[in-house]
Amino acid sequence: MAYFDAASAAPLHPVARQALLAALDDGWADPARLYREGRKARMLLDAAREAAAEAVGCRADELVFTPSGTRAVHTGVAGALAGRRRVGRHLIVSAVEHSSVLHSAEAFEAEGGSVTQVPVHRTGAVSPSGYAAALRTDTALAVLQSANHEVGTAQPVAEVAEVCRAAGVPLLVDAAQSLGWGPVEGGWSLLAASAHKWGGPSGVGLLVVRKGVRFAAQGPADERESGRAPGFENIPAVVAAVASLRAVRAEAAQESVRLRELTERIRARVPRLVPDVEVVGDPEHRLPGIVTFSCLYVDGETLLHELDREGFAVSSGSSCTSSTLTPSHVLKAMGVLSEGNVRVSLPLGTAEEDVERFLAVLPGVVAGVRDKLGAPAAAAPAAAEPAALVVDALGKRCPIPVIELAKVFPGVPVGGTVRVLSDDEAARLDIPAWCEMRGQEYVGEEPADGGTAYLVRRLG
Amino acid sequence: MAYFDAASAAPLHPVARQALLAALDDGWADPARLYREGRKARMLLDAAREAAAEAVGCRADELVFTPSGTRAVHTGVAGALAGRRRVGRHLIVSAVEHSSVLHSAEAFEAEGGSVTQVPVHRTGAVSPSGYAAALRTDTALAVLQSANHEVGTAQPVAEVAEVCRAAGVPLLVDAAQSLGWGPVEGGWSLLAASAHKWGGPSGVGLLVVRKGVRFAAQGPADERESGRAPGFENIPAVVAAVASLRAVRAEAAQESVRLRELTERIRARVPRLVPDVEVVGDPEHRLPGIVTFSCLYVDGETLLHELDREGFAVSSGSSCTSSTLTPSHVLKAMGVLSEGNVRVSLPLGTAEEDVERFLAVLPGVVAGVRDKLGAPAAAAPAAAEPAALVVDALGKRCPIPVIELAKVFPGVPVGGTVRVLSDDEAARLDIPAWCEMRGQEYVGEEPADGGTAYLVRRLG
Repeated sequence: MAYFDAASAAPLHPVARQALLAALDDGWADPARLYREGRKARMLLDAAREAAAEAVGCRADELVFTPSGTRAVHTGVAGALAGRRRVGRHLIVSAVEHSSVLHSAEAFEAEGGSVTQVPVHRTGAVSPSGYAAALRTDTALAVLQSANHEVGTAQPVAEVAEVCRAAGVPLLVDAAQSLGWGPVEGGWSLLAASAHKWGGPSGVGLLVVRKGVRFAAQGPADERESGRAPGFENIPAVVAAVASLRAVRAEAAQESVRLRELTERIRARVPRLVPDVEVVGDPEHRLPGIVTFSCLYVDGETLLHELDREGFAVSSGSSCTSSTLTPSHVLKAMGVLSEGNVRVSLPLGTAEEDVERFLAVLPGVVAGVRDKLGAPAAAAPAAAEPAALVVDALGKRCPIPVIELAKVFPGVPVGGTVRVLSDDEAARLDIPAWCEMRGQEYVGEEPADGGTAYLVRRLG
Repeated sequence: MAYFDAASAAPLHPVARQALLAALDDGWADPARLYREGRKARMLLDAAREAAAEAVGCRADELVFTPSGTRAVHTGVAGALAGRRRVGRHLIVSAVEHSSVLHSAEAFEAEGGSVTQVPVHRTGAVSPSGYAAALRTDTALAVLQSANHEVGTAQPVAEVAEVCRAAGVPLLVDAAQSLGWGPVEGGWSLLAASAHKWGGPSGVGLLVVRKGVRFAAQGPADERESGRAPGFENIPAVVAAVASLRAVRAEAAQESVRLRELTERIRARVPRLVPDVEVVGDPEHRLPGIVTFSCLYVDGETLLHELDREGFAVSSGSSCTSSTLTPSHVLKAMGVLSEGNVRVSLPLGTAEEDVERFLAVLPGVVAGVRDKLGAPAAAAPAAAEPAALVVDALGKRCPIPVIELAKVFPGVPVGGTVRVLSDDEAARLDIPAWCEMRGQEYVGEEPADGGTAYLVRRLG
């Protein structure tokens, strides 16, 4: 099995496993106790905090361990917003943040706060000027990821931090996807991260709050972890997490070059091997191990199943795999195709042969899925049929509406228009994306009986 | 080293260790994913939930895993209060709950809720009638521990649950100390527990919310664990926690008899071996492994250090070890002596020899601490000195004020009164407790320059 979903959870690093086993023996007791076992646990915790702080580039007393990256984000956002409540109740996030950030923003809005989402370019990157434009006198906090979890695009954190610093607004960086590769540059104020993204065990996140940043922990008081992470410390997991961070950092310089070359192969060759594919995300400013592409006329869930049968574990931001049946908010914000979406995220040590085998099987797998769905062949479009100016795809899920559109299109005269009726939310994203890929005109949408009508004009 | 602090954290059960190692291999992936590793992780999580639910006596879909017992309590209390907000904003807790419950209650009061603390008997137990008296028409939730963490006293949970049920008020049971011994009886509505108390790893708590109980999870939304425990699931730790719960339950019938006999030895023999000791907690209705006693004229922190040097890890609810310098709220609510407090909590498998060795060294250790502090000998009271009717112990910490009182007392004529001046909060508890132990009259307290004056009359 080739596991290509490190951005969801990286396999446990061998060093983490060893450290966990050792710390299970020495770090299980209560570090608040004065007897020998308690003191041993306290020493392990203190040493782990020092080492984590060194890797992050902060002071040890600025860093606490949380039960997950999600909890670090929730605690960090809520605490920073509460700490600056007198300044105002405005929060800035990018449109492509992790759901833990967006859910924090929704909770804040539900309590009466206001939120500005900064848009992204088609690459998935924000502009520092986007943050500058969003800043207000009542802005309490801005949040930006160091790199995107779905498409790998690196964000201009240092520049955005500078924009925020000039306005006196703290910036919280969600460094979940990048901390294993190196410290986050720039003058950020708070930082959150998650150990299982860098090969540490589940159950450990980091929250850093720089000295001088106003912070008011929310929820019931607790004496542990500076009052910022209630509950008994999970010392064996913390020790393992930090050991793993140091180990992956030691390999980072070499592995980043190697993985970048492997993902570059996928970026370059998939569009040549598979027709009607869009590779998304910034080709240069990106994480080494992530590459994402979308395949027209493909149902993402079926594609994942077929790749799993071939021995590849990948994930998808495609509408068709989400439990909510809405397309990935990241792909939507980028304005790129979401159907048949595949994210390949390579763990450290990924073998070149596995990537080559992936490239070898992918074309056949995609073709097979398209066959099942009756999608038009890319090279040889279906024979022209009489123009059906209305395509009724009501009740049909992604990617059927686009497939039906493509089937009738060859029969539409140049200058003619097709109305696609659909009640699938993904069509709103995918029909315009199809037009852009095909060089046709997307005219717009209008309400229709039982759904929405999407209008497409044939340009050539 | 004899580790006698299982009530803080039990050593990892060998079965938990094995299960953790196995699940590190099979349970590290994201259980929300559709590929093989994700499905394996999901199966492990589902099986763990089924097994935990069976051990608790609930449905699997009523139980979620949290990152700690503290988080289970925080989430359970906040969610139940929010779910019944329309009913009212009144919360009932006992005076001897774990700090996670009391801190939740404080947070609720800070948001405008009102809280009633139900008092306890000198044994540490509440009365069902105490809960009945506290219930109001606007009571949203009542909380009660299954057994006390400091003195081991079992609470009448089934009776209190019945009182609450009759009033239509849900009862949350904090089962942290007892779940390893068996399920909690009675018609409770919510239950919280903590795996590292039963020999599971750190990082796992349980929260059970019975079907039909109104519950509104607070904080940012999250898709995992029914929206009640945000963040990536810690499946290896969950698997280990549940394996450990099943293992300790299998040993419970035998071990509970064995440990109860060992703690009974301590209960019976410590007062005979050590002068001026009060054994606290209910002698019958109690956890098998916990016994707590307090030693007059002893500084708890020094006592713990000396016991640690002799190879015993115990904890203390004594004022002298707490970072806040206030006596244990549990001992205070019980109205028993808090100075020189020692809690012995035996882990499963504790060797009889270790308990015997503890009983052998304890008298000498206590005598040594008393010697250093210049405490009066119990058998041979210090020679009578001229009566000093005012004892100035201002600026002196526990147990010095009581020691000073005891020193001058032999010189006080029967019917005479001593004024002890003290600014140590522990004196408020310990001077009345000393009077009770000595059969003297505690007259009361009054404000004094720089502190409080405690008045004691000699009866004989």
